Amino acid sequence: MNFCSDNVSGIHPRILDALIAGNDGNVLPYGEDPHTRRAEARFREVFERDLAVAMMATGTGSNALALSLVASPISAIFCRSGAHLQEHEGGASLMYTNGARIIGIDGRNGLIDPGDLDRVLANFDPAHLLCKPAVVSVTQASELGTVYSLQHLGEISAVCRHHGLRMHMDGARFANALVHLGCQPAEMSWRAGVDVLSFGATKNGAMAAEAVLVFDPALAEGLRARLKRGGLMFSKHRFLGIQFNAYLADGLWLDMARAANARATELADGLARAGTSELLYPVDANEVFVRLPENTLASLEAQGFQFYRRGGGVIRLVFGWNTKPADVASFIDSACKAA
Amino acid sequence: MNFCSDNVSGIHPRILDALIAGNDGNVLPYGEDPHTRRAEARFREVFERDLAVAMMATGTGSNALALSLVASPISAIFCRSGAHLQEHEGGASLMYTNGARIIGIDGRNGLIDPGDLDRVLANFDPAHLLCKPAVVSVTQASELGTVYSLQHLGEISAVCRHHGLRMHMDGARFANALVHLGCQPAEMSWRAGVDVLSFGATKNGAMAAEAVLVFDPALAEGLRARLKRGGLMFSKHRFLGIQFNAYLADGLWLDMARAANARATELADGLARAGTSELLYPVDANEVFVRLPENTLASLEAQGFQFYRRGGGVIRLVFGWNTKPADVASFIDSACKAA
Amino acid sequence: MNFCSDNVSGIHPRILDALIAGNDGNVLPYGEDPHTRRAEARFREVFERDLAVAMMATGTGSNALALSLVASPISAIFCRSGAHLQEHEGGASLMYTNGARIIGIDGRNGLIDPGDLDRVLANFDPAHLLCKPAVVSVTQASELGTVYSLQHLGEISAVCRHHGLRMHMDGARFANALVHLGCQPAEMSWRAGVDVLSFGATKNGAMAAEAVLVFDPALAEGLRARLKRGGLMFSKHRFLGIQFNAYLADGLWLDMARAANARATELADGLARAGTSELLYPVDANEVFVRLPENTLASLEAQGFQFYRRGGGVIRLVFGWNTKPADVASFIDSACKAA
Amino acid sequence: MNFCSDNVSGIHPRILDALIAGNDGNVLPYGEDPHTRRAEARFREVFERDLAVAMMATGTGSNALALSLVASPISAIFCRSGAHLQEHEGGASLMYTNGARIIGIDGRNGLIDPGDLDRVLANFDPAHLLCKPAVVSVTQASELGTVYSLQHLGEISAVCRHHGLRMHMDGARFANALVHLGCQPAEMSWRAGVDVLSFGATKNGAMAAEAVLVFDPALAEGLRARLKRGGLMFSKHRFLGIQFNAYLADGLWLDMARAANARATELADGLARAGTSELLYPVDANEVFVRLPENTLASLEAQGFQFYRRGGGVIRLVFGWNTKPADVASFIDSACKAA
Repeated sequence: MNFCSDNVSGIHPRILDALIAGNDGNVLPYGEDPHTRRAEARFREVFERDLAVAMMATGTGSNALALSLVASPISAIFCRSGAHLQEHEGGASLMYTNGARIIGIDGRNGLIDPGDLDRVLANFDPAHLLCKPAVVSVTQASELGTVYSLQHLGEISAVCRHHGLRMHMDGARFANALVHLGCQPAEMSWRAGVDVLSFGATKNGAMAAEAVLVFDPALAEGLRARLKRGGLMFSKHRFLGIQFNAYLADGLWLDMARAANARATELADGLARAGTSELLYPVDANEVFVRLPENTLASLEAQGFQFYRRGGGVIRLVFGWNTKPADVASFIDSACKAA
Repeated sequence: MNFCSDNVSGIHPRILDALIAGNDGNVLPYGEDPHTRRAEARFREVFERDLAVAMMATGTGSNALALSLVASPISAIFCRSGAHLQEHEGGASLMYTNGARIIGIDGRNGLIDPGDLDRVLANFDPAHLLCKPAVVSVTQASELGTVYSLQHLGEISAVCRHHGLRMHMDGARFANALVHLGCQPAEMSWRAGVDVLSFGATKNGAMAAEAVLVFDPALAEGLRARLKRGGLMFSKHRFLGIQFNAYLADGLWLDMARAANARATELADGLARAGTSELLYPVDANEVFVRLPENTLASLEAQGFQFYRRGGGVIRLVFGWNTKPADVASFIDSACKAA
Repeated sequence: MNFCSDNVSGIHPRILDALIAGNDGNVLPYGEDPHTRRAEARFREVFERDLAVAMMATGTGSNALALSLVASPISAIFCRSGAHLQEHEGGASLMYTNGARIIGIDGRNGLIDPGDLDRVLANFDPAHLLCKPAVVSVTQASELGTVYSLQHLGEISAVCRHHGLRMHMDGARFANALVHLGCQPAEMSWRAGVDVLSFGATKNGAMAAEAVLVFDPALAEGLRARLKRGGLMFSKHRFLGIQFNAYLADGLWLDMARAANARATELADGLARAGTSELLYPVDANEVFVRLPENTLASLEAQGFQFYRRGGGVIRLVFGWNTKPADVASFIDSACKAA
Repeated sequence: MNFCSDNVSGIHPRILDALIAGNDGNVLPYGEDPHTRRAEARFREVFERDLAVAMMATGTGSNALALSLVASPISAIFCRSGAHLQEHEGGASLMYTNGARIIGIDGRNGLIDPGDLDRVLANFDPAHLLCKPAVVSVTQASELGTVYSLQHLGEISAVCRHHGLRMHMDGARFANALVHLGCQPAEMSWRAGVDVLSFGATKNGAMAAEAVLVFDPALAEGLRARLKRGGLMFSKHRFLGIQFNAYLADGLWLDMARAANARATELADGLARAGTSELLYPVDANEVFVRLPENTLASLEAQGFQFYRRGGGVIRLVFGWNTKPADVASFIDSACKAA
């Protein structure tokens, strides 16, 4: 039983079926095919507005490309200290922005505090540091499994607007956050002030499908050229369009996210009942960070449970669209017995 | 009937079946899965030596990543004038090498002449131009549908070695060239002096699967970091491994390339018999460049044949693994009638 | 007698005296000193308008910095084929723009033809080449010693405006062109449509003093940050300001340029009278390109005349503010005798 | 009286005299002149070994160029948190290395602790962070006015060698550190393990003269091309050579550094006797960081003393080759009276 990440999962059958169905025949490459056109239209429906889309296979590419639209080499990008784009993307945003400075702000439960952000920006001296604050990136759901409320996002956005910054959202787990809040995609993105969104589907049931959604048309110029320049543009582009079409059809993406989130809650609740664990952050989405005794961890590993250790007895457990409730129950049971 | 490019085609059923079969269950991300391991081993078997592999979705990413291993910002990269990496990749190699100069050498039939290359390199003044010749990139099969013979490659390689340059091969259509020559992959790559190979599968029946193969271990350091930095690394990496495994199994890749090449030959032969066309280059692989009268072209287009015009009555026709012989015959028939 | 380049000369005594006089005392660094303030004001007077200035030591830095204000990584920069910025600046503009494509247009006598430019831009396919035409760079005086007339510049500018491009002027020899035309600096720059000017003083009597002048305030944002980021910003900035103040005072810069141009004309006229030479381009500024018999060249070199050979018996002779008329006469005399 | 920085000073008369003397006549550009040759030879004498040199006008250029020789885009550069290259160079090292990660290590008194460095490197996970530790940069004298002992440098070097890293020294105030230690330049650089040195002269009496000294010939390839590419290479290169020749002649550089250091010591001693101040770091070189009561600071400023405030009553005072002992005494006197 593998709880290492949501990207250990395969493709949801309905997306796979769509790939099979869409495989027949010849279509034009580089996005000139009907599947891609439909996916673009679908994004506009789902987000209730016009927007520009770039589709690709990776979340790292998506974040870096998105940031390259709003940050230049003399820009400063702000994110939570330790955010994925700062620490786990191999410097991709440095490459795509050609040297924007990435500045971490200590967060609480994985979320940037609007007051902290405001203080950092108010005290920032562009003349001294020779870079200009350009954009704040929030991760929704956060890397620690927590979710910004709409009010929280609105406050961040207000700080951004006050200081003249753009707002980017790393939505690698956008769906998991969305179903937690129970709101509309538009509310959690452009209506909350997001200018550019990295919209992820890979972790939540697709094969390899990420999109940059640009809500401000002025930012979208050069989107296609930048996509190509990064080596991110599919030639058989239909296979990106097909994934998104199936993903967004009939609420599949929301159903998958709800299932994943439910598993996380089940685990957290189960361990809480057992009483020997310490939960590190609220469980809003599909990740649980919990501290367990070393002998419990060793016993769980010996039984074949897979997860990432974070030091000090803390482990991260991530749940996917395909995680079985029985596996979660089994983990809880084993953890209780081992305690 | 779409002859615009080989990337208008879908996925070969055996590769698609492999994707379906490999979809079940959870595996570790980022290449730590058994499918990827098997593909890496398979590449070593097919190329009969140890090598390093990076897999990704796009040929542009593959070329740019490959060149970043052998060229620095103060390097000069040589290719045929108008080569894909120079003109159709959106400056990706500039981005990945951070500014290497790309210098085109006029070719004959899409191929660099060793004598021309030698002259260019002998007359190159690094002190004056402030960049150092670092690598020659050859496209095999070339962008004009021709193929370097092994002897030709050996002569290019000799010039490279003489001047201290590395050799890169853009093998977006590696298979089409290979079956034309009827030789082994090793012969057409590292034994012919190639240090780094961009190995393409997408055009020839895969969904989105390209690999950088590094034959000199000294060049492979940082390969993984550079893959991630470019946003090219799949999280659900198995789906790249699966494609390559099926592609390379039981000679499928060679069969598909043979079929595509055969269609090109059939077309060229058929038009030659008709007598009203002018073939621009030898038809070695799966592309045909031919000049036809304008009324013939207009008639063909009116009947629904799709192809790219190149000016002056020249069109490019590309054939894929799935092009039907009947479609080729139909094109010839229509062209003859229209003439 | 060294006719290799105008940068073989030293500093004009009046500029040197100013450096000596301005050396006393302590002043704030990084441009906060009175000399720099005065130079900035002086540039505004000389160019009869508000503008932003960045000062530095090198022309390569100046061109690259200027272009980085108007070109992004997905931009195309157009210049004459073989222009200094394309061939002799070590890829600096690639570095500072992070990968803009530099596209050469064949010129006549070193000058871009407006009709050629218009045709290139009209036929440019941004979607295909995945870069957007952003700026045309003209070199005034050109690398071949010729000068754009005001009408010629206006025609180039009209083409730029028609296609939505910015206009940059590489004015490494701005003064030499200016005195040839006998017009005002404003006429030959922003009134002629130039948005950003690389204004050179080094070749014309300064020690190391070049400036980027930005006429459109919207382009100047980040100028200072980019100057620092390139490592171009002097800490003891006064020494740049001092040079420009003395250079621009009392018409010194124009006097020096007139002297240099006069030497070039004397040489061209002298050789024309002798009759054995072939002049390659009109002599508008301070450079002469002339073809002489090999035995003449050998004889001149044997007598200690220094110049650069360009192949085929063509040599380049460049004259500085300090070239002595007697040296020019001596060259003519020797060339005639050797013929 | 201006204690803001050592770069508020002008040029030492002997260096200025050399510039005047060397101004006559024509010499070849771009470093092919006798002054530059002599300076290169002089560096070899002073450092008692063969080495490669690149000369330029700025310390930021010097650091960035030096680091570009030892760090690639997938490298990690380590320095003290808050080191000049990390915080005050506008991202120049990001630009020149094209995206190397710059990682700060908390220091003590401005110096990196070898044990801390070893721990950071031992725990560094290149596979996780996708960048490889490549170089440690030490600032000698440090930004806080302290100096690494030879033993301390040796320990840093040993850690570097143990982990396979190169060692860079930011020697913007190399001379101030050298006279404090009373050792030879070789001992404080390559014999202590330094591979690449940014050697500063500007702050210590030159006009604008900084050099990258490369002790390992394998690292020097492309030095000249990178210098040009950055826009750092002087055309009238003699004026860099002349500055260094005069700077290094007859111990002038050491005399100037001794004078500046002496002023710092006088100030620290004077304030210590007065008793109302708190010295923050040992005064090894020519900088003093001291905390004074707000009314004292206000009084000093009102009397025209200039210095930078650092918050919490802390000020930085920097002394140059030309600081008058009387000015230091005056500051002490005023500070005592104001207390």
